[in-house]
Amino acid sequence: MAKETALDKVISLAKRRGFVFQSGEIYGGTRSAWDYGPLGTELKENIKAEWWQTFIRGRGDMVGLDSAIILPQAVWHASGHVKTFSDPLVESLHTHRRYRADHLIEAYEAKHGHPPENGLADIRDPETGQPGKWTEPQQFSGLMKTFLGPVDDQEGLHYMRPETAQGIFVNFNNVVTSARKKPPFGIGQIGKAFRNEITPGNFIFRTREFEQMEIEYFTHPDEADEWFKHWVDACYNWFVDLGLNPENLRKFDVPEDDRAHYSAGTIDLEYRFDFAGSAWGELMGIANRTDYDLNSHTEASGAKLQYFDQASGTRYTPYVIEPSFGLTRAMMAFLVDSYTEDEAPNTKGGVDTRTVLKLHPKLAPVKAAVLPLSKKPELAGVSQDLAQSLRQHWNIDFDDSGAIGRRYRRQDEIGTPFCITVDFDTLEDQAVTIRDRDEMTQERVSLDKVQSYLAVKLLG
Amino acid sequence: MAKETALDKVISLAKRRGFVFQSGEIYGGTRSAWDYGPLGTELKENIKAEWWQTFIRGRGDMVGLDSAIILPQAVWHASGHVKTFSDPLVESLHTHRRYRADHLIEAYEAKHGHPPENGLADIRDPETGQPGKWTEPQQFSGLMKTFLGPVDDQEGLHYMRPETAQGIFVNFNNVVTSARKKPPFGIGQIGKAFRNEITPGNFIFRTREFEQMEIEYFTHPDEADEWFKHWVDACYNWFVDLGLNPENLRKFDVPEDDRAHYSAGTIDLEYRFDFAGSAWGELMGIANRTDYDLNSHTEASGAKLQYFDQASGTRYTPYVIEPSFGLTRAMMAFLVDSYTEDEAPNTKGGVDTRTVLKLHPKLAPVKAAVLPLSKKPELAGVSQDLAQSLRQHWNIDFDDSGAIGRRYRRQDEIGTPFCITVDFDTLEDQAVTIRDRDEMTQERVSLDKVQSYLAVKLLG
Repeated sequence: MAKETALDKVISLAKRRGFVFQSGEIYGGTRSAWDYGPLGTELKENIKAEWWQTFIRGRGDMVGLDSAIILPQAVWHASGHVKTFSDPLVESLHTHRRYRADHLIEAYEAKHGHPPENGLADIRDPETGQPGKWTEPQQFSGLMKTFLGPVDDQEGLHYMRPETAQGIFVNFNNVVTSARKKPPFGIGQIGKAFRNEITPGNFIFRTREFEQMEIEYFTHPDEADEWFKHWVDACYNWFVDLGLNPENLRKFDVPEDDRAHYSAGTIDLEYRFDFAGSAWGELMGIANRTDYDLNSHTEASGAKLQYFDQASGTRYTPYVIEPSFGLTRAMMAFLVDSYTEDEAPNTKGGVDTRTVLKLHPKLAPVKAAVLPLSKKPELAGVSQDLAQSLRQHWNIDFDDSGAIGRRYRRQDEIGTPFCITVDFDTLEDQAVTIRDRDEMTQERVSLDKVQSYLAVKLLG
Repeated sequence: MAKETALDKVISLAKRRGFVFQSGEIYGGTRSAWDYGPLGTELKENIKAEWWQTFIRGRGDMVGLDSAIILPQAVWHASGHVKTFSDPLVESLHTHRRYRADHLIEAYEAKHGHPPENGLADIRDPETGQPGKWTEPQQFSGLMKTFLGPVDDQEGLHYMRPETAQGIFVNFNNVVTSARKKPPFGIGQIGKAFRNEITPGNFIFRTREFEQMEIEYFTHPDEADEWFKHWVDACYNWFVDLGLNPENLRKFDVPEDDRAHYSAGTIDLEYRFDFAGSAWGELMGIANRTDYDLNSHTEASGAKLQYFDQASGTRYTPYVIEPSFGLTRAMMAFLVDSYTEDEAPNTKGGVDTRTVLKLHPKLAPVKAAVLPLSKKPELAGVSQDLAQSLRQHWNIDFDDSGAIGRRYRRQDEIGTPFCITVDFDTLEDQAVTIRDRDEMTQERVSLDKVQSYLAVKLLG
C-alpha cells in the first residue's frame, strides 16, 4: 500500500476535527460535495478576510463587487459559455455510463506511455475491463441550469454562473461611473460558482459547487504586460506571506494550446499537493484576457464597455488581467503545507510525536484556548471571564476536560497559536501561563496584559 | 403622485452611488435580481462581520458552519420541502399568465374591504381588467431545481436550498462530536438560499436569490421557552445597538394559523419600511421549531440526531430555537433608517440641505476619506501616504477633485464618518483636519495620531 501522504493525513484530520464533512453524510452523501464544520468555516473566513484586506481594502486601485449567481441568459451567450463551455462525452455500450473522451485518452497515455493507436476503440471499459464499445462523442455542457418563474420553459431557463468574472464585466460601466474609477483599476469578488464537472474529486480540490476569489484588473492595452507581471508577483507573495513554503509553490507558464480561448497568456500557480498520480495541482491562475470580454459584451448588449480618457481625449477598450483564486484550493494548500509531525515532551520525561498545524496566526481558526488546570469552581470564574473578554476580539476556545498535555495536543492539531493555562497561582499572582504552539515555550503574563500580548503576537 | 418616501430616496441613492445595481442591467436586467456595487458590498460585509462577531465568535455557546447549497435530494424530502414548499397557482385564460391564488384574493380584500363572495370568479384579470376566467389552482413548488451529472434525469435532479437551516440539522452529530458541544449551544451560518418566488419585489426585500444569516440553537425541551425569549431580545438588541431606531422596529407575535407547520411559536421583528400598501415588513423571525427537524431527519436517515446527557444518563432530542435573518433586508433597514436630510453651512454663509446616511461607524462602507485641499503635488505625496497607511486597517476613500464642500457632500451621502482634509498648513504643522459626519465639527489632529484617533472613534 502506498505511503500515507500529508494530504491523506490532512483529509482524515479535517473530518475528525470538524474542518470538512461530507455533504449530506447521514443520507449517504453527495458525490464530491463538502460541508465546512466550525473550524473549516473559521479558516475559510480568515482566508477570505486576508484576501479582501490585501487585494481590495488595502489598495487604492481596487474595489469590491458582489453580483448575483443567476444572471440573465444573455450574459452567458455573449461570454461564449453557452456555446463553448462543454466537453466531449462518450457512453460505454456495456454499462451505459458516460465518460469524458479526452480523460479516457489521457488515462490510456499515462498508463501506456503513448496515445491509443486506434482512438477510443483501443480503450477498455473502465468498469468491466471489456474491450471498449463507445458511442460517438457528444458535447456536454458544463453549465448548470435552473428555471425561474412558474413554468420550466425556454423563457424560465437560467444558468448558474460557472465563474464570478462575468458579473464584474457586465458591471464595468456601473463601477466606473459610481465609484469614479479610471484604469488602471480592478474589481474583486468572492463568491460561489457552479460547474457540472464529470469527474469531481481529490477532496475539496474539484467540486461542482465551489468558491472563487476573482480580480478583473482593467488597464490600457499598452500596460497589460506590465500589470500581468505585477499580479503574478502579488499573488505569489500573498501565499508566501501567509506561510506557504516556496518549495511547494511554482509558476507554470501555460502553453498556448492549453490556454482558454480568451487568454493571450496564462501563468498558473501550482502547489505540490502530492495527489495520487500527479504531485502538482493548480492553485490559481493569472490570465491576460485582453479586451475579449468587454468587447463581447459590448457587441451583444450595445452598451459601450469602454473608457474615455479625458486627458488624451481618446476612447479605448481596456485589457483585463485576471487573477483567479479557488478559495477551497487555497484552504487545502494551507492545511497540507502546515501539517507537521514533530516531538513534544511528555509527562514521563520522554518525548511523544505530536501533530501540529503550523498555520499562520492570521489564518488559525482558533487564536487562543483558555485551559483551566482544574475543573474546581475557584478556577472556573476567572477562566470563563478571561475567555469571554478575549472573545470580543478573536475566536477563542475553552477546554477544561482531560489532562493538560492532551488538551495541548488537541489545540496543536487544529493550529491554535496560543494556549493560556489558568492555575491555582493565578488566584494569587493574577497571571496566566501562555504557551507558544510552535516553540512550545511558556511565558507568565499578567491577566490584564493577556489581550495586548495576543494582539501583538497575532497581528504584529 | 404619492410623496417620495425615504425608501424611494434610498433606492435612487443606492443605484447612483454604487450600493446596488440591477442585475444584468446592460441586457435589460433580470426581474428583481440585484448586484451589489463597491459600497453595497462593503456595507453587506460589515453587517455580516458584526453578526458573526456578535452571535458566533463573541459567544462561547456558538460555532459556525458552512454547508453546501446543493444537498442530496433526501434532505429536502425529509425536511418536508419537496411536499409542502409550494403555493397554489392559477392561470388566466385571457393572458395565460400565472398568479398565486392567495395573492389575488388578498389583493381583492385589500381593495374592497371584504373577501370575494364567489372566490376567484369575482376577480378580474390584473392585466386586461376583463372579468376573470381562471384555471383550477395547481400546486407550484418554490424549490429551484438543477441537474448534476451528465443526464437531466431523476437521478441527477437536485434542489438548491431554500434555507440554510437544513444544512445545520443534518450536521448536528458531526458538530456535537467534533466540536465537543452540548446543549444549550447553537450553530450559525451565513449563505445564499434560493426560492422560486412568483412575486419578487420591493427592491432587495424579496428576491429569488438571497442571503440568510441563520442560527439553530439546540436546547433541552424544558428550556426552550426561556431560550426563545433570550433570542428575541438578543436579536432586537443587535439591531438597536447598530443604530436602528426602536420606533421603527416592532415585535409581531405570529398567530398560529400563519406560522410555518414546524413552529410552536414565532416572533417576527418588523421594520417600518414604508412600502406602498404596507408600512411594516418582516425583517427577521425567531421560531421555536421544537424537535420537528431533528426528528424528521432521524426518521428518514436512520442516524440518531439526539443528545446523550452523561450527567443524567438520559437521551433526548433537543428543541431548536431558530433566529433567521435576511441579510439584504437588514441592509435595506439600515439604509432606510440612516437616511437623513438636514442642513449644512455653505460657502456663501447660508445653509444647504444635505443628504447624509447616519450609519453606525461599524457599518459605514468607507470609514474615512482623505481629501487634499488642492491637487498640487506638494499635497499629493502626504495625502496618498496617509491614505495608504490607513488602508492597512480600514476601507478608505481618496478624493482630490472638486470643491471641498462638494466632496464633503459626496462622503456624507454614503455615510463616511470622517473626512480628513490635508491642506498647506499640513506641510508646516504635520497635522490634518478631521471632520465629523454627524456633528460637522472639525478637529486638528497630528499626522502620527490619525490612526489611533480613528481607532478609538470607530471601534470605541
